[in-house]
Amino acid sequence: MTTTTDIANDLVALCKQGDFATPGEKYWADNVRSIEGMGDAPVSEGKEAARGKGEWWTSNHEIHSTGVEGPYVNGDQFIVRFTMDVTFKPTGQRMQMDETALYTLKDGKIVEERFFAAA
Amino acid sequence: MTTTTDIANDLVALCKQGDFATPGEKYWADNVRSIEGMGDAPVSEGKEAARGKGEWWTSNHEIHSTGVEGPYVNGDQFIVRFTMDVTFKPTGQRMQMDETALYTLKDGKIVEERFFAAA
Repeated sequence: MTTTTDIANDLVALCKQGDFATPGEKYWADNVRSIEGMGDAPVSEGKEAARGKGEWWTSNHEIHSTGVEGPYVNGDQFIVRFTMDVTFKPTGQRMQMDETALYTLKDGKIVEERFFAAA
Repeated sequence: MTTTTDIANDLVALCKQGDFATPGEKYWADNVRSIEGMGDAPVSEGKEAARGKGEWWTSNHEIHSTGVEGPYVNGDQFIVRFTMDVTFKPTGQRMQMDETALYTLKDGKIVEERFFAAA
């Protein structure tokens, strides 16, 4: 049986390899809700919207380095911390990002991902 | 107005000073649910139960050092990471703990605290 810990560890292992696209393709539910920690359009619904958000992010940022810590598990949920040193290509601004993501699983798929911004 | 970020920052500041008791007394709701990441009795209900759990923990562990990272905020929720180097007094076993806590606020009080264990 695939447990929360199995999925969490697989997601973290992929991200540590710099692969931030495969975890979503493998584990997003078709109706996944993706909730940002800040910004104008914090909630997106569905796998297509989540994929589009990831593609926009990837094409607009140059990644200098990334850090992935976790996972931390409780029941059908887990938390991962992401730190990233990136340049936002449209402005050339370099930023140090620090956020955590809370994933909620149902039937082995991610039905919600909620991002928390460092305060 | 007191925001999630205000409460989160106050809780983190107190914990960074080594004061893990005051945040609960200040911010727990009377009916707070406290959910452990592991163990036999993962859910406790009410401020008295949460306080008792904290007092048991404090009296049974010698704390060598602690680390507090965060907070990370989204809406009425925030996440804090705790690392601790402790000795469990009954057995003398020294342990490095690493966990995150997800706090949910309602009307300026913590109605749920959910702990996630490093997997």
